[in-house]
Order: sequence, then C-alpha cells, then structure tokens
Amino acid sequence: MPKIDGDRLWDSLMQMAKIGATPAGGSCRLALSELDKQGRDLFIRWCEDIGCDIAIDQIGNIFATRPGSDPDAKAIATGSHLDTQPTGGKFDGVYGCLSGLEVLRTLHDHNIQTRHPVTAVVWTNEEGTRFPPAMLASGVYCGEFSLEYGLQQTDKQGISVAQALQAIGYDGQEPIGQRRFERFFELHIEQGPVLEDGGERIGVVEGVLGIHWFDITLVGQAAHAGPTPMHLRHDALLAAAECFTALNKMAQSMPGEQARLTVGELDIDKASRNVIPGDLRFSLDIRHPTQEGLNEMEAQLEAIIQQHCAAHGVKAQINCIWRSPPVHFDRDCVGTVQAAVNALGYSHRAMVSGAGHDAVYVSRVAPTSMIFIPSVDGISHNEAEHSTPEQIQDGAQVLFDSILASAQ
Amino acid sequence: MPKIDGDRLWDSLMQMAKIGATPAGGSCRLALSELDKQGRDLFIRWCEDIGCDIAIDQIGNIFATRPGSDPDAKAIATGSHLDTQPTGGKFDGVYGCLSGLEVLRTLHDHNIQTRHPVTAVVWTNEEGTRFPPAMLASGVYCGEFSLEYGLQQTDKQGISVAQALQAIGYDGQEPIGQRRFERFFELHIEQGPVLEDGGERIGVVEGVLGIHWFDITLVGQAAHAGPTPMHLRHDALLAAAECFTALNKMAQSMPGEQARLTVGELDIDKASRNVIPGDLRFSLDIRHPTQEGLNEMEAQLEAIIQQHCAAHGVKAQINCIWRSPPVHFDRDCVGTVQAAVNALGYSHRAMVSGAGHDAVYVSRVAPTSMIFIPSVDGISHNEAEHSTPEQIQDGAQVLFDSILASAQ
Repeated sequence: MPKIDGDRLWDSLMQMAKIGATPAGGSCRLALSELDKQGRDLFIRWCEDIGCDIAIDQIGNIFATRPGSDPDAKAIATGSHLDTQPTGGKFDGVYGCLSGLEVLRTLHDHNIQTRHPVTAVVWTNEEGTRFPPAMLASGVYCGEFSLEYGLQQTDKQGISVAQALQAIGYDGQEPIGQRRFERFFELHIEQGPVLEDGGERIGVVEGVLGIHWFDITLVGQAAHAGPTPMHLRHDALLAAAECFTALNKMAQSMPGEQARLTVGELDIDKASRNVIPGDLRFSLDIRHPTQEGLNEMEAQLEAIIQQHCAAHGVKAQINCIWRSPPVHFDRDCVGTVQAAVNALGYSHRAMVSGAGHDAVYVSRVAPTSMIFIPSVDGISHNEAEHSTPEQIQDGAQVLFDSILASAQ
Repeated sequence: MPKIDGDRLWDSLMQMAKIGATPAGGSCRLALSELDKQGRDLFIRWCEDIGCDIAIDQIGNIFATRPGSDPDAKAIATGSHLDTQPTGGKFDGVYGCLSGLEVLRTLHDHNIQTRHPVTAVVWTNEEGTRFPPAMLASGVYCGEFSLEYGLQQTDKQGISVAQALQAIGYDGQEPIGQRRFERFFELHIEQGPVLEDGGERIGVVEGVLGIHWFDITLVGQAAHAGPTPMHLRHDALLAAAECFTALNKMAQSMPGEQARLTVGELDIDKASRNVIPGDLRFSLDIRHPTQEGLNEMEAQLEAIIQQHCAAHGVKAQINCIWRSPPVHFDRDCVGTVQAAVNALGYSHRAMVSGAGHDAVYVSRVAPTSMIFIPSVDGISHNEAEHSTPEQIQDGAQVLFDSILASAQ
C-alpha cells in the first residue's frame, strides 16, 4: 500500500492554523468569516494544484474531486469542516479536511487510477458557534434542514448565512444534495480521553451516541438560612445534590461503560448567601449507543429525581426538550476501516462517538463511518487541543487505505 | 397585671402597613425613603399623643420616652425597626416598634408611674437593603461602626445615609451613644418555623447563633459531555453535590439540632448544557449557638470538602470571609422574660435566634434579651409574612410584663 506523507500533512495543518491563529496556539476561523474564506481558498488552491475539480453547492459546501475511471461510479468521499470555535484548536475538523487533501495528493503522487472518483469535502458551519445550529450545512445537504432554513440562520449581528456566503464569494451554484456518494468516511480527533487512556492508536467508530436533553425545575421553599432548622427545610439545592449523586451512580451502573450523564447548567432563582434555595433549574444531558439504553436511563432518571425530591418536600418537573436517536454506521464501511487497521497492525478499539459530527447527517444518505485518533489529555474546543504528528499520520494512513480499498 | 390592648396594636400595625403597601399584601418602606419618613412621622405622632419625649440621634435613631420617677435611673428600653425589605411583610421590625408604642400606651392608660423611664426605640436601616450593611444604625449606636462610616454608606444611586437623613429631616442632633439603657428588650416575629412546628406561643430568646461565611472554589476539568466517559471525568459539580449531601449530614449530626448549614449560591463558570462543569464557586453559611460548635463545624467541613473533591480529582479552595461570634443574652433579662411567660401561663420554648437583629449590637452596651412569637409557615422577608392577632397580642403582653417588672 502506498504511504501518505505525514510531514506534508502536518505542514499543511500548521499552515492552515496560521489563518486566524490565536495567542494561546489555537485558531479562530468562525464560519463564513473573512478568515474562513482564507482557509477555504487555501484548501481549494491545494486541491487545484493536483488537478482536482472544485464544486461549491448552494450552502457553501466544497467538493474537491479526483475523477475515477468509471463515469457512472459515485465518489468515495471524505471530509469534515474548516470552521472553528472562537478559541478552537488546530485539529478539530481541519484534520479531516486536510487528510482528505492528503489522500488526494497521495493518489496523485502515485498516479493511482481508481474506478470511483475520490472527493474531499469541506462542510460549512459545523461548529454552529456563529450560526446555530451545529452541523447546519451537512444537515441541509442530507435534507434534515431545508436550504431556505439554512440560508436564513443569522449570527448575533443579524447577518444571515446567505449574506455571509455572498460576502465571501462562497454562494455556490450546485443544487443541494445533487451529488451523492458511494461511501463517506470522516476522520476526526476523538475529543475525549478514551483512546489515550486505553493506549490505542485508532478508534474504529461504529456509531454515535443518541442524546436526550432535559430541563428540570425544582420548587422547594426559600427561607432564611438562620432561623430555619435543618429538619424543617425544603432545600431545592440539597434535593438536587442528592439527585446528581444518584443519577451519576445510575449512569455508571449501565452495562458497557457507554452511558453518559451530565448536569452542565444549574441556576438558583434569587440566589443569596443566607437564603435556603427555593426554586432552581438544571439541565440534564444523557447519551447512550442504543435507544433501549436511552429509554432505560430516562425511566430511571425520572424515578430518581422524583424520589429524592419527595424526600425533601420539593416538587420536580422534568421536561424532555430534545431527542437525537443513536446512529449506527454502515457495517461495510466499518468493516473496511477495521480491515485497514488490521493490515497496518495498529492498536485500536471499536468505539462509539459521544459527540455529533457531519458524518451523522451524511450517514442518512450514504454508507458512512468514522475514524478517530487520540486527543492529548482528551482536550478539545480549546486552544490546547493537540494530537502528535505520529497520531496525525496514523489516522490519515487508515483513511487512505480505507478509501483506496473502497474506490477500486 | 394590666393588659395591653391587642386590637389597638393590630390596628396600628395595619395602619402602618398602608404606608408603602404592596399589591400582594406586604410593605415597602426602604430605609430613609419618603415612605420611611411617613412611617417615622406616624410613630412619633402616636408617641407624642401620649406625652412622650422624642429624641433623634445623629444616625436617625428615634427614642420616644415616658419619664420615670427617679431622675437618675436609666431607661428600660424596647424597639426594633420600621424599614422593610423591597417586598417585605407587615411585621418584621414593625411589630417590635409598635409593641413598644403599645407598652407606652398601656402605661399611659393605667397611669402607671415607673421608677425607670421607659423608651421605645426605632433603629435606622436594620434591613441593609438600601444601605448595606444590615443593622447599620444600632451598630453605630453601640460602637461597632463609627458615625462617619455610618453616614458615608451609599445606596445604588450614590445617595449617602447623611444625605438621605437630611432629605427626610431625620438628621438628629443627639450625640451617638449618649443615651444608655438599664435594659433592652426586642420583641420580634421568629422568621422561622420552630415555634409553629412545636405549637408554642412564645420564644424566650437566650442568644443569637454565631455565623461563619465561606467562599469555596472547585477546579475540576471542563470537557465535552459526549466523548468523556463517566470514569474519566473530573466533574466539579458532582464533587460539589457529594459535598453538599455530606455537609448537610454533618450539620444534622451536631448535638442539639441548633446547627445550621446552607449553600445559597452556586455558580458554574462558563456553564453549558453539554460541557462537564470544570470550575465553580459556592457559598457556605454555617451557624451555631457556641463558638466551640462553630469551630467543630469548620474543621469538619474542611475535611469533608477536601475528601470528596479529592475522590473526583477536583481541587478545592476554602476561604472564610466573615466570622460573627455567638451572642449570649443577659441572664437577668432572659429570667425576667421567662418569669413573665410563666406568670401568663403561655406555652413557650427557650431558643436561640438564627438571624441577626438590632438587639445583637445593643447587647454589647446594655443588658439585653429578645422575645419571639410564631411566624405562620415560618415565612419572612416576604409579602406573605404573617402572625395572627392572638400571636401579636401574646408577645406584646410578655413584653409589657417584662418591662414593667424591670422598670419598677
């Protein structure tokens, strides 16, 4: 098998990172900003340098294609996003795009003629930081959102996606979803600590955790901290604290260590140092690889919250505000990645992504799977985000081998 | 023993409550506002109607005195405050002032000549809502704060106490602390649920809980809620939750059911629904009737917090920001109140106030104690604050009998 050029890929990553470089070593290229335009332009120039065809669709997604020998064969595609968080790292998304470029370069270097075309994709506005929601343009591409909806989303200054696309010259002409893929692979940093903790080089990603989001309101009795004895209180925060401990134990006791449960927001109404919390609200995020697991967690969390609140004379209201079902990636794609990893002899684990990615939406319209490499200390969405040059090379090689195996 | 006139006292309370009446049945008379002036004027008019001498000191405290027969005898005094919370009730403070008036009226009605003068006091700015800190003017009176400090405090509009006193004509001439008392009794609603819960009519208040305030900072590791497995997290909120539960158990296990422990404020830094809390801050308020108890609680809370945080790989920093020692009221004053309650045959309990009152500062310069009546549902600092006409009458009778026994 031909080898990708790890040094070249690393150099390209470092060059891209200079566009919107932040003082602490990260990058800031908000979606459809002038800096995002510069990143896109650089990507396109690199792809054109090796003779690729460039197309841009109506939501600004970029498709760089190396033709195949069979005019009827659909492309084997890969890609991710070039936009970043406001204080993002150098690798989140960018790694997937530039590894696509590196695959194209390697095919070019070795003059390899594939039967299927090979396409590297840049999806617009994956982060959703400037234009909510996240994964907007891959969502439009697969039909989750209408094109109209996508173009109407606005940033905090009231600038719409349509306006921003026009301003940077990325309001493309290709009709949405016209281009479909034979297969899609997304290579990404893990953004979590699992691979590093396990000492594995590659994550063979079989799916994405389903997510349920809840808003939970507790109503106890606000009262003076001094005159109210402990046994006569209806302390909403104490009830919440007992819930958190019990909910955490519940998540830990789910089989397979793949359940996640997080309370990220907690707001006490009219909080004061010497007032027992009466009313409060907290968020709850649960994730599991199976719908059965999610349902089981949902049933248990309701029982846990009601039980612990009742013990304190606190009323609880639980509202589920969002349900995203688990994603199971295409077996053949996963098998191809697995075979590539086996052939390379890299240590690896089968895993499920905890976070959403463009591949989630793409998987609805094309056979899809993902490849992960370790994130140092599991850190992401942070300027300190890092993966080593060796890890970067590992993942790109697995991607190349998977694409080549699929494209012939 | 002569009987106070419960109906008259109730009517006066209801008349005072009309000044600054709120839609939900409470009162809003912020300290030294135009409405506070109207309340003060009414109080003074009522006292003058029965021939009392009025004096106002340099911080606006009002002293209404019925002379005694012995020109060398110091006054037996009682009183509280007329200022309220922004959405305060009809009774907090007001009850103590108007019961002082009712004592003077009853002495007047029965033409009783006491050896000691009897003085009803209105302390300026007890609530501290407009001009922090709370109990400002009784603090100035007893020397806890200098007069200069008291006059310089400002509200949110930048108006100083000195300016506000002048604006409403209550910048009195009597030098601070010139007038000292033989004894001081403060009658107050309990502002807690203990008497109601125990079915007692009167609280014989022997002291005030000491208070220690802490700011506690936890530093864990913020991370994506999705990709981070439960066992690899350093969740600051989960560590805090375990602390709260353990701290509550500790407070409950202190002997005598008189310990209080409250977390009133909790702020997660950069809180987001799908981010594991990394940094957070919470407040901690502990109270106990003895200094030994407070010290014991402080030692235990440090151990509890460090232990639970260490178990999650979370760092804790504990800062004590304020220490107010426990107050032990004068034994003779407490004994006089106890004797009055016994003679009346009212059910009662010896208790310790959980909240601060003007009597805390006054007790530093005069023999002092307090009398409590039940608060319906323990509610206070709230428009729903309530005590029944019978409860109002009970407390005023105990106050009258205690003052008469002391003044002869």
